[in-house]
Amino acid sequence: MEKRTEIKELGEFGLIDRITRNFDIKNPSTRIGVGDDAAAIECGNEYLLLSADMMNEGVHFDLTYTPLQHLGYKAISINVSDIAAMNGVPQQVVVSLGLSNRFSVEAVEMLYSGVKAACEDFNVDLVGGDTTSSASGLIISVTVTGRVDRDRIALRSKAEKGDIVCATGDLGAAYIGLQVLEREKQVFLANPEMQPDLEKYPYIAGRQLKPKARTDIIHELAELNVKPNAMIDISDGLASELHHLSKQSNVGFFIYEDKLPIDKQTYDTAVEFNIDPITCVMNGGEDYELLFTIRQDDFERLKNHPDIHFIGYATEKEKGVNLVTKNKNVYPVKAQGWDHFNEKEKGK
Amino acid sequence: MEKRTEIKELGEFGLIDRITRNFDIKNPSTRIGVGDDAAAIECGNEYLLLSADMMNEGVHFDLTYTPLQHLGYKAISINVSDIAAMNGVPQQVVVSLGLSNRFSVEAVEMLYSGVKAACEDFNVDLVGGDTTSSASGLIISVTVTGRVDRDRIALRSKAEKGDIVCATGDLGAAYIGLQVLEREKQVFLANPEMQPDLEKYPYIAGRQLKPKARTDIIHELAELNVKPNAMIDISDGLASELHHLSKQSNVGFFIYEDKLPIDKQTYDTAVEFNIDPITCVMNGGEDYELLFTIRQDDFERLKNHPDIHFIGYATEKEKGVNLVTKNKNVYPVKAQGWDHFNEKEKGK
Repeated sequence: MEKRTEIKELGEFGLIDRITRNFDIKNPSTRIGVGDDAAAIECGNEYLLLSADMMNEGVHFDLTYTPLQHLGYKAISINVSDIAAMNGVPQQVVVSLGLSNRFSVEAVEMLYSGVKAACEDFNVDLVGGDTTSSASGLIISVTVTGRVDRDRIALRSKAEKGDIVCATGDLGAAYIGLQVLEREKQVFLANPEMQPDLEKYPYIAGRQLKPKARTDIIHELAELNVKPNAMIDISDGLASELHHLSKQSNVGFFIYEDKLPIDKQTYDTAVEFNIDPITCVMNGGEDYELLFTIRQDDFERLKNHPDIHFIGYATEKEKGVNLVTKNKNVYPVKAQGWDHFNEKEKGK
Repeated sequence: MEKRTEIKELGEFGLIDRITRNFDIKNPSTRIGVGDDAAAIECGNEYLLLSADMMNEGVHFDLTYTPLQHLGYKAISINVSDIAAMNGVPQQVVVSLGLSNRFSVEAVEMLYSGVKAACEDFNVDLVGGDTTSSASGLIISVTVTGRVDRDRIALRSKAEKGDIVCATGDLGAAYIGLQVLEREKQVFLANPEMQPDLEKYPYIAGRQLKPKARTDIIHELAELNVKPNAMIDISDGLASELHHLSKQSNVGFFIYEDKLPIDKQTYDTAVEFNIDPITCVMNGGEDYELLFTIRQDDFERLKNHPDIHFIGYATEKEKGVNLVTKNKNVYPVKAQGWDHFNEKEKGK
């Protein structure tokens, strides 16, 4: 019998490593290939950045509680986030749709009104794609381009020992927002006359349904003349992203629990759900904030920024990735993030 | 009740027109947006080309008779074909996969061995993508980049009255190949002990399962110093592509039945299936040959090319798109091509 290895045994990143390891780069225009938030291609004096993300119904979204406009917005936003994570500015998107016959023209128009709103917010042009049918459910596959000056590109591999670790916005909200949406769905399924109780949770529900890529931060870093050493967007959870930076930059990290940015609604709702709020921050996915490291010399220029938080520092690789609790205990951080191939592990 | 318009009422192209008409172009780097085989973006002294195609299990392929290696090859090839259709040279691809838990790591490796073979044949680099799960079946979404000199880009909109219409290779083979594959599948389902009878049809089965984009033609046109006025790849059938050129260039066409390139195996198999061979040529999809127009002055330079066929000429728009039969009768050509949203019409 032929060998059968389940994909969840390897996980998403293990699978990508395995299937791409035999590929080589043949074109001199290819400067960065697989392994960062986006690829980088020579384009005159700049780099053109290229990244793709696919969202599938029943895996990445549930149309029971996801408005199509928000979904269209999110599909663009999460792609733009990968361009921001390279310190780049987004420019074009191509959107490929797979539609089952459940979807009407009006439904696709709703979806595209969200795509359009995102294109306007992020100043990107819709330049193409593919519109086709699917045997079941909705598929949204987006590719985004961006630009970055050659000397300003931020890679996952360039963090250095002594760098200060920065995170934007707040973390964990999208994950706990998802818990609320799922709970209200169950309440509705059990009793369709119950109204969903979302008014109490506008911020966290919005963070899940309509995240906003942090292109604002990229413009501000340029204005403040700060170039991050390494950068990544927080899509799979802070813990997972720290491990990517650690692995690719050959550094370790100390992260301080009392420096982690968490919104009050996230905190209160986590407590309500009996989930440790720090678990939401460390392992909850889909925040689409930015995680980056800066040289200590750049701290002065950023220290008054209201939405950039200094959560720790980079150290020797051998020390690993660590969380320093409020009680000064030090725990190794596991790489556990959102893995679509093994959803059961999520949030544990 | 809300209005519900079925997508098949509009068809793929009507839907694309409807959902993209409110989008505007904001970035000066965007030179060609939605509406051609690929978008064109300024990139130093050249244009960077960008195109995407999605293939969904149960719609675009049937794994009962499609080897995964061939499918991986085809996913790249059909995207590269869109770059060729702009007179460009492909350079990079990003590949996003949706995988249900039916697929093992070994299956994905098979698929990627085909992706790799295509990357080598077409000299393109795999630079990224997304690997995620799907609720059902296999989804392959590819975006390809390419390059073209600014003065050599070939658009759908630049055919001129008097141009000679050229088609590469031969047409209709992929469509009739699909009929054979479908028939053998039914035979197998009825009696699993029957062996599929594909040895008789190697060429047409191969044209369906593993089409090869005509990047060779692009290099030869450059060597012969011929720039097509207008170009498109033949993915939805010759009739449909002629109508795209007609609409976007404001010209009509006369196409001669006796000039249409058809392989003997295609012809014989069409007869065996009781299908008019010319219907296969005109309306069968997935040939991935190139359809282009040239100035009459360029005919001399191409006339001895063994794989470029001169099938008609462009005329005034008012005359429409016409087929001149062997008996010199003239029939208007309907735009009927492959439409995933209305498969029943296919091939009629």
